[in-house]
Amino acid sequence: MKIINEHITFKTKGHSDIVDITGQVQREVNSSGLNNGSVLVFVPGATGSVTTIEYEPGLVADMKAALETLAPQGLDYDHNLKWGDGNGHSHIRASMLGPSLVVPFIDERLTLGTWQQIIFIDMDNRPRSRELILQITGE
Amino acid sequence: MKIINEHITFKTKGHSDIVDITGQVQREVNSSGLNNGSVLVFVPGATGSVTTIEYEPGLVADMKAALETLAPQGLDYDHNLKWGDGNGHSHIRASMLGPSLVVPFIDERLTLGTWQQIIFIDMDNRPRSRELILQITGE
Amino acid sequence: MKIINEHITFKTKGHSDIVDITGQVQREVNSSGLNNGSVLVFVPGATGSVTTIEYEPGLVADMKAALETLAPQGLDYDHNLKWGDGNGHSHIRASMLGPSLVVPFIDERLTLGTWQQIIFIDMDNRPRSRELILQITGE
Repeated sequence: MKIINEHITFKTKGHSDIVDITGQVQREVNSSGLNNGSVLVFVPGATGSVTTIEYEPGLVADMKAALETLAPQGLDYDHNLKWGDGNGHSHIRASMLGPSLVVPFIDERLTLGTWQQIIFIDMDNRPRSRELILQITGE
Repeated sequence: MKIINEHITFKTKGHSDIVDITGQVQREVNSSGLNNGSVLVFVPGATGSVTTIEYEPGLVADMKAALETLAPQGLDYDHNLKWGDGNGHSHIRASMLGPSLVVPFIDERLTLGTWQQIIFIDMDNRPRSRELILQITGE
Repeated sequence: MKIINEHITFKTKGHSDIVDITGQVQREVNSSGLNNGSVLVFVPGATGSVTTIEYEPGLVADMKAALETLAPQGLDYDHNLKWGDGNGHSHIRASMLGPSLVVPFIDERLTLGTWQQIIFIDMDNRPRSRELILQITGE
């Protein structure tokens, strides 16, 4: 059993930009040289989330709309009143969907469904450069 | 430390059918021969989620109602317009609740509360046969 | 690779009381003597959740308001009709946000962002004493 700490970086457009990171995660699993185990994808920050989705333009648009319903941008968030950065909705959405995802891999392949991709959602209200932690544990 | 990959299979009724999988997960932990560790329950697909609940008929009905509020079936999802399978709401609900759950076990027992069960929610809009990945890591 | 099972205890006010447990989790990681790995924080019960947030009073208030929107206290939950404990909303919120969080640590430090804390949310409708499981795996 080994633990390998990696990270991936990419740019986002903010505003619930949804980024397919499946390829980057699979490549790090391949580079690890491990056959069986899991990859922990972790967002070191409070305005982004990781989950999975069928990554096609329709659902990407539907998810953005659903996040706007879950925690609308236009509400009077106390966070905005105190800090003035206008991203109260970003924080609430990120906490609700969560910063952490664990995906198994078997024989070097992530055990995703055929129409299932790992996504990062940048809930923040501006473009950002993001770095996610990938911790790969296995044998 | 060992990693053991198993899976469980079952049939669902779809339409947010909520299945108590605690017994199946505990049996796989017992079969693993491991005493301490964790079990990663993973849904290889984009229309199902795993979480925990007090599994009693009242809450099962309440959760179905709450999911209908979270992402109503009747909205005009772009996914439905493009693909015609009518399960846009299924995908959104599944992504929000997530496909992955990690539960510790100590002395061969899942560390669940007395009134806490592990559930799979089939968000899809039709009955399905499901296979979940169980990755058991421990010693 | 080692697995160390610990727990932390604290009191809450219930009613979506949000408790910053980052310090307690980091101390257990330090006490473990492990350098690299992950900590699994698990709620053994069906009315509490773990996630992360920027822990400042504005967002704490915003999160409580958002949870009230997600699953309002005043609805006619079947759970309440059957069991009379009035915490149907607590269960639904807890199942949606989830009982499990995995956070990596590297060189003995949790890989949290600067403005990101680990929180327990007590969704129940009364003050409670809580015990969470911390399972620390690493080397």
